[in-house]
Amino acid sequence: MAATGEETDGRPSWLVRKIRGLLLDISGVLYNGSEGGGEVIPGSVEAVEKLKAAGYKVQFCTNEDQCTREQLVHKLARFGFKLLPTELHAPSPVARKLLQERNLRPLLLMHPGGLAEFEGMDFLNPNCVVIGGAEDQFTYERMNKAFRLLLNSDNPVLLATGCGRYYRSGSNLLLDGGPYTKALEFACDVKAEIVGKPAATFFLAALEGIHVSPEDAVMIGDDIVSDVGGAQACGIRGVQVRTGKFRPEDENHPTVKPDGYVDNLAQAVDLILKYN
Amino acid sequence: MAATGEETDGRPSWLVRKIRGLLLDISGVLYNGSEGGGEVIPGSVEAVEKLKAAGYKVQFCTNEDQCTREQLVHKLARFGFKLLPTELHAPSPVARKLLQERNLRPLLLMHPGGLAEFEGMDFLNPNCVVIGGAEDQFTYERMNKAFRLLLNSDNPVLLATGCGRYYRSGSNLLLDGGPYTKALEFACDVKAEIVGKPAATFFLAALEGIHVSPEDAVMIGDDIVSDVGGAQACGIRGVQVRTGKFRPEDENHPTVKPDGYVDNLAQAVDLILKYN
Repeated sequence: MAATGEETDGRPSWLVRKIRGLLLDISGVLYNGSEGGGEVIPGSVEAVEKLKAAGYKVQFCTNEDQCTREQLVHKLARFGFKLLPTELHAPSPVARKLLQERNLRPLLLMHPGGLAEFEGMDFLNPNCVVIGGAEDQFTYERMNKAFRLLLNSDNPVLLATGCGRYYRSGSNLLLDGGPYTKALEFACDVKAEIVGKPAATFFLAALEGIHVSPEDAVMIGDDIVSDVGGAQACGIRGVQVRTGKFRPEDENHPTVKPDGYVDNLAQAVDLILKYN
Repeated sequence: MAATGEETDGRPSWLVRKIRGLLLDISGVLYNGSEGGGEVIPGSVEAVEKLKAAGYKVQFCTNEDQCTREQLVHKLARFGFKLLPTELHAPSPVARKLLQERNLRPLLLMHPGGLAEFEGMDFLNPNCVVIGGAEDQFTYERMNKAFRLLLNSDNPVLLATGCGRYYRSGSNLLLDGGPYTKALEFACDVKAEIVGKPAATFFLAALEGIHVSPEDAVMIGDDIVSDVGGAQACGIRGVQVRTGKFRPEDENHPTVKPDGYVDNLAQAVDLILKYN
């Protein structure tokens, strides 16, 4: 399929203004997850290499919170991606920074695989809750613990890594942290602060890391709301790939209109290298 | 404290129009629950007996879903109340009736103590979810099962016994079914049908059972929103007791204004017997 939103010379409208940096989603753009570990999306390894070789500043924006950045780099290396942990922008390190700045001691309602991102913090007498894709850790006992902590706080703080509804793990759909965040919000009459996508602070911090301003950047992702809509809300062009969780009905989304569509990351990069 | 909303002759304004029947909440009006089983609220046993002796039609409206009506009758008998299961109006039997009318096979996300109310139903290949105060049954595995069932339904049906946020059990606060209902609503983009209080259908069915019309009835309860507001929304006078979960700030509730306040059930009944 052709990239949409083309100008008469073949230049996509999202490339009319020059871009200097890119934010790339990982799952659904670089690879598709599955029970056995997943598979690379064809052309993505080469696309990332071509971007870097051409001098573009790139940051990888993910809401992954079930492993550390180091583990994610190793996982991606198995598919052929040569990334550094510092090129990854993930919610847990951002949450950690927020907690330290505000002198907060977290109760972590998180997946065990991602806990190492909070290593060395003070967990005694917690005074806030950090919630993520905790899976089996969402026991009634732990939910009650988080609920009581928030209910008894004068100034309750609930940080959420994201607000995803569910995700696919192999042949199964699993509840993400979003529904459990809604449960705690309702129980304690609090509003969670989203740390990861689609929070504007998250995208802007990623761009700060590569010294690119929003109007000079493009976010490429498969999630119409979290990736594309989130980026657009803070002045970053949002381009939707037709890989990962993309579904044809996304092209008629009631509120989010991407700046452009591409079949996959490889096509996006070819267009950038040709027209930018 | 005096009953509020008094007319000049001492008659409370909620007794200006004659009443024929009463809906009484149980927990917080007849007794206060606690870890050891709870304790009777002084004067309540005699108040119920006086009402019945005076010929009033009475139905007991509860969102209790963690035991059967028979078990609740036995529990109340230990406090001195002589009630029959048919005098209790509880959400599980209402849910059962709804399921049968609509030919639905439920996945029950309920407390084991209340399952007997659904005995003999068809649970094979469930096509809807009934959710209540399931406590430890709110495992990640069971929540995922309910979520997938709803997500895969063309016409998803989620019945909730109530929408309580939490309740006290002894010295502990425990999450009620409401937060978990919100979690499933968010995950599957569905709206739950509340079966128990504050649903209008619940109050009206209780009155139908005693052949009393809403304008001839009073609901007496300790929950400003679920008992008082719910009853008022379907034309039943709502009277708030200052027992159970009542808190002084309830008297300044932003949206619900009770038709009257009483210190406890005994005072309400004395006023009824004197002025009605």
